[in-house]
Amino acid sequence: MCEANVYLAAQDGAEEVLCLESVDKIVPEGPDAWRLTSIFGEQKLISGRILSMSLVEHRIIFETD
Amino acid sequence: MCEANVYLAAQDGAEEVLCLESVDKIVPEGPDAWRLTSIFGEQKLISGRILSMSLVEHRIIFETD
Repeated sequence: MCEANVYLAAQDGAEEVLCLESVDKIVPEGPDAWRLTSIFGEQKLISGRILSMSLVEHRIIFETD
Repeated sequence: MCEANVYLAAQDGAEEVLCLESVDKIVPEGPDAWRLTSIFGEQKLISGRILSMSLVEHRIIFETD
């Protein structure tokens, strides 16, 4: 399966924190709001901007305020 | 490998057009600008907003103006 793990990084450069594993779908829900859905059906609504995505490494990083 | 294909969709609802295959990295380069890099090292700079991502289906769709 080709899901990715989503991490949140604060603007102050603090360490990235795992937000949701095995994410399949990412859909915007308004400005800087995103709904994540994992392959297990778990959902999270997060606020932030995409900082980087590396699909081969299964890493998607959002920057939060 | 867990890359995805990136498609562009116009706001008028016209058909999605394949932009770049086998994309590994997606990194923002300013407001609504994104640098795509494929697993083969091919790069494209696109302008648009993410409309939806389904990693399991290897599909990422950007909406362009």
